[in-house]
Amino acid sequence: MPESPTLPDLDPISDRAVFRQIADHLREAIERGQLAEGDKVPSEARLMQHYGVARMTIRNALQVLQSEGLTVAEHGRGVFVRSHPPVRRLASDRFARRHREQGKAAFIAETEGAGGKPSVDSIEITEVKPSPDVAERLRLSPKDRVVRRSRRYLINGQPVETAISYIPAEIAKGTQIMQPDSGPGGIYARIEEKGYRLDRFVEDIKSRMPLRDELRALKLAPGVPVFHLVRTAYTTDGTPVEVCDTVMSSDAYVLSYELPAR
Amino acid sequence: MPESPTLPDLDPISDRAVFRQIADHLREAIERGQLAEGDKVPSEARLMQHYGVARMTIRNALQVLQSEGLTVAEHGRGVFVRSHPPVRRLASDRFARRHREQGKAAFIAETEGAGGKPSVDSIEITEVKPSPDVAERLRLSPKDRVVRRSRRYLINGQPVETAISYIPAEIAKGTQIMQPDSGPGGIYARIEEKGYRLDRFVEDIKSRMPLRDELRALKLAPGVPVFHLVRTAYTTDGTPVEVCDTVMSSDAYVLSYELPAR
Repeated sequence: MPESPTLPDLDPISDRAVFRQIADHLREAIERGQLAEGDKVPSEARLMQHYGVARMTIRNALQVLQSEGLTVAEHGRGVFVRSHPPVRRLASDRFARRHREQGKAAFIAETEGAGGKPSVDSIEITEVKPSPDVAERLRLSPKDRVVRRSRRYLINGQPVETAISYIPAEIAKGTQIMQPDSGPGGIYARIEEKGYRLDRFVEDIKSRMPLRDELRALKLAPGVPVFHLVRTAYTTDGTPVEVCDTVMSSDAYVLSYELPAR
Repeated sequence: MPESPTLPDLDPISDRAVFRQIADHLREAIERGQLAEGDKVPSEARLMQHYGVARMTIRNALQVLQSEGLTVAEHGRGVFVRSHPPVRRLASDRFARRHREQGKAAFIAETEGAGGKPSVDSIEITEVKPSPDVAERLRLSPKDRVVRRSRRYLINGQPVETAISYIPAEIAKGTQIMQPDSGPGGIYARIEEKGYRLDRFVEDIKSRMPLRDELRALKLAPGVPVFHLVRTAYTTDGTPVEVCDTVMSSDAYVLSYELPAR
């Protein structure tokens, strides 16, 4: 049984609702490791006593943590801190050329940078007829074919993302994109070696509950939604050269973007 | 009873799983209005017969639509097309100065552009002590205060987003930011009039299930997650001048961003 976390008192002049303040305290205890993976969160009765608030307020606070995927309620036993991968913050510059030139794919470089152990499995490479959506994004004609590279990303052995890249067959054929190990800098480096100069990516992000196969592939806890992110890579002359269709566990990611005000 | 939609046959050489192809067909029928809001989706039995597949395949296809918030299952009655707001695609350039100079706030301009009827309600303006997170993002000292502007956005009368802006009191006081109608171009235009030249925004995006109060405010269907998006506005000299904390119904938005490859 772990030591109970030390929880601060409520701030009476804060504009933040009481249940959110309590959730903040518990989240902080989890982030600091005072409440570690598998630990039991203090009971409703203990939290009611500590804060001097009604049971409903405590329940609302606990619901905040559960909705964030930080805790899980086990019927009749209490609320426990979930095991979960570290949250990766994906920054706007994650596909910048300077990272590619260091020879590592974005996922590997970032995860190692954050002190995690990255791995990739379930790599499958096939040549297929593109779906209408992929064909439209890549501006392909009906008879063009694409190379489909699917894989799963894990951090410390826990799956966090599945991704399927579609590259026009004409670009991918004869390159290391056709091999399980796509080589230093990943597939974007290989595309550039073929003479396509990458300029920008457009990412379209949706959020929804996972489908059955996604639930399995990402080993998601109940009530954890996914990001469904589709990225298109464009060259300096505006030609789309890759579409990447990804499904990401929402409790493993914060997506961060920069927008111009000019 | 509406005319049944005409569904195409399966594409036997597609790399797309059969249940996803069926979901694509039904989604297209919804998008084209062949299946309109409130219409009953063809029964499992009818779909099994049309496609010649097992019941589980049809159920997986129907689950795709439900997870996207497009349909809702009514126990014992069948599956129906949900009433839902049009999906807004939020583009990277939505806060560009040229839009502000047209005198409309981003939400109003975009919704009208997409043929929807925008409205804003529940506007509340108070001066408060910032939370630790807001104070950190705005780099405020412990005694600084902020103006808190909260409001709810609706499209065609349906709530899609709640937003709370925090602006240092020193900037907001004495401007129209303190009034329910913040004036032409919205609060960003008012901040610029005070001599702060906006340069960029950073948006941090999480996805999670809604909390109780968010469920009520956004009138979300069961199983629809939210985007929790926090935007910080920076001036040309790197000073943060506003933090906007928003919660968006995931079935009303696709977020779109551009990332540099350079």
